[in-house]
Amino acid sequence: MKNIVDNIEVRAREELFININPIQPGGRLTTEAMKAIIAYGDGYSTCDWCKKPFRLDKIQRPPIDEFHTELAKFLGMDQVRVVPGARRGFQAVVNSLVEKGDAVIVSSLAHYTEFLAVEAAGGMVKEVPLNKNNIVTAENTTQKIEEVKKETGALPKLIMIDHFDYMLGNEHDVHGIAKVSKDYNIPFLCNGAYSIGVMPVNGKEIGADFLVGSGHKSFASPAPSGILATTEKWADKVFRTTRMVGDSTKRKFGIKEVEMMGCTLMGANLIAMMASFPTVQERVKHWDEEVKKGNYFAEEFLKIEGNKILSEMPRKHTLTKVDTTESFDKIARTHKRRGFFFSDELKERRIVGEFVGATRAWKLNTYGLTWDQVKYLAQALQDIAKKYGINMT
Amino acid sequence: MKNIVDNIEVRAREELFININPIQPGGRLTTEAMKAIIAYGDGYSTCDWCKKPFRLDKIQRPPIDEFHTELAKFLGMDQVRVVPGARRGFQAVVNSLVEKGDAVIVSSLAHYTEFLAVEAAGGMVKEVPLNKNNIVTAENTTQKIEEVKKETGALPKLIMIDHFDYMLGNEHDVHGIAKVSKDYNIPFLCNGAYSIGVMPVNGKEIGADFLVGSGHKSFASPAPSGILATTEKWADKVFRTTRMVGDSTKRKFGIKEVEMMGCTLMGANLIAMMASFPTVQERVKHWDEEVKKGNYFAEEFLKIEGNKILSEMPRKHTLTKVDTTESFDKIARTHKRRGFFFSDELKERRIVGEFVGATRAWKLNTYGLTWDQVKYLAQALQDIAKKYGINMT
Repeated sequence: MKNIVDNIEVRAREELFININPIQPGGRLTTEAMKAIIAYGDGYSTCDWCKKPFRLDKIQRPPIDEFHTELAKFLGMDQVRVVPGARRGFQAVVNSLVEKGDAVIVSSLAHYTEFLAVEAAGGMVKEVPLNKNNIVTAENTTQKIEEVKKETGALPKLIMIDHFDYMLGNEHDVHGIAKVSKDYNIPFLCNGAYSIGVMPVNGKEIGADFLVGSGHKSFASPAPSGILATTEKWADKVFRTTRMVGDSTKRKFGIKEVEMMGCTLMGANLIAMMASFPTVQERVKHWDEEVKKGNYFAEEFLKIEGNKILSEMPRKHTLTKVDTTESFDKIARTHKRRGFFFSDELKERRIVGEFVGATRAWKLNTYGLTWDQVKYLAQALQDIAKKYGINMT
Repeated sequence: MKNIVDNIEVRAREELFININPIQPGGRLTTEAMKAIIAYGDGYSTCDWCKKPFRLDKIQRPPIDEFHTELAKFLGMDQVRVVPGARRGFQAVVNSLVEKGDAVIVSSLAHYTEFLAVEAAGGMVKEVPLNKNNIVTAENTTQKIEEVKKETGALPKLIMIDHFDYMLGNEHDVHGIAKVSKDYNIPFLCNGAYSIGVMPVNGKEIGADFLVGSGHKSFASPAPSGILATTEKWADKVFRTTRMVGDSTKRKFGIKEVEMMGCTLMGANLIAMMASFPTVQERVKHWDEEVKKGNYFAEEFLKIEGNKILSEMPRKHTLTKVDTTESFDKIARTHKRRGFFFSDELKERRIVGEFVGATRAWKLNTYGLTWDQVKYLAQALQDIAKKYGINMT
């Protein structure tokens, strides 16, 4: 339908606004990535120089093989594959390790895609309860493992915990959990969707058996794109090559990896990841500054009477869940535009990305904003508060 | 590494050359798709206006929901989802229907990703032998089903056959096979990776339970992108929503579909598919002309003494496997550049996309070339033949 194309608006919110959307800032393209998708937009653009053994991660021109090697080093892991989204990384690992009825330990703040990966494999999730600060600890993980063992008579087949969760942006004790996983000899998948690409993450230092990252969430890449990294110990299992033989033709496709469905992320998305890689390598070094800006914002935000921050404080991540039930929501209750008054006020100040209409608990992310922009953002919220007679503390 | 970016060459083969690559022409972006990926390149670009029920195919702005509806109509199916490549469509269907040890009927020319999808689910492939014209027939499919039944004591759980195969570009009897599948009450997945998006394909007319297409192969879209369509009968099974409940938090994510891993193809790739859709709808009407050009090429190609066409004749597809063992390969055998002499000659004539160095059996695709370009291509091959003293017949 011509209609559909006419209704695809030109997306310009990153150009025209300060965007505080919780999931978008880490996936904004770099200039290099933008150039890359223009040059490599065509479907099978990465396959021009594909030669034996005919697998994406072995292609030398463009230097896809080198990227894989360097990316593994960057993550402190032995082997890496690109996948269409972090979820496809979870799926590959879970499908390799989990049989019907097996338990998988996840966080009480686990992303829904971790649930789905376990469900698709026929397993069941067992959530580690949070401590009073909304953190997943090694202690609670141990306790959950013991409970599962007692309840099912078997150890869980996998521990899958988020480095930083999607809900509060809290840091969880992945180092401690890695030790627990070693004690029990259960493989540990560390979900770095909110960390890999924005801050330094080293899988070996953490002690993770698997590291999963998201290109569109934190690696300045288009969707879908993601990263699955592992150690030599687990590579043969999760990156196992096909053993299927055609019963009639006797055909074999021995180089193709089963869980990767062969070649994984052909095309523009991969080349964009490669193009963003130098910037990503550099930007993770400045994560401290990003956190500083996030904490500056948090402090200014809390000067508005009634405002609360639901995430851990001080912030260790730029993704933050806030609560304005006792401030902006009070205004919304009697405003003719209800919660939309708040979005209207933000938009007027060229700020977008809040959940439109929400004035109770909502999330924002200051990642990548300049100091000027962060200050402007904090000031804007205080201005809105003042305009509606909310006190400053 | 800065190095990696420096070594990403600007890809311009579609601009500078006639590209006869077997898998690339159907996935060349339209102008609209190119504009779309520029506007929607950023990671979570499609999520700006995501509202309840928070699922990609329900998003109204941009009109992703409308696209899904129109795409289903276009394919003559009831429901459709976009997926990161046709292979992820196979995976979703196979993982929904196939248990460990179950048999799946595939073609003797099945794509390797069909093998992998079956292997990942723990099933086994059973290949239907080709007839003497290298076609998968209803008769041979019936016979294979009977063999499997006899051998394993159970019927296969799925029949998965390519509409046109990747090797020869031959058309297989998917209409007849659909009837067989109904007789046996076995679901039928028709792999339209080489047909959906370049020619008219109607799933209901074929009688398919599942239709799988490829965005980067035949729908003028970036990789990875693909289509999985089905009927009401099967939608509840393959697009089943999650039933997993967090044991500790009691969390549910009821709207998310298990085999889709939730949202599937967020971002630029989906918007590119949408942007290409009107062009795709129009271009499938002109498939006859594309086939005409393909047959013109085939006839001119066969005028070179020793040349053979391994695909069925007359051609019904623009993807064709040729054999030049008795023509160009004879030259290669004594040429100092070996098989590369042929690539050199083509490149000098601004033609690329043949398998570099290959002079025996190789594939080419004339899809999307103008008549002038097809004539030029045929002439160029004849010129090369003449230059090396190969006769014309």
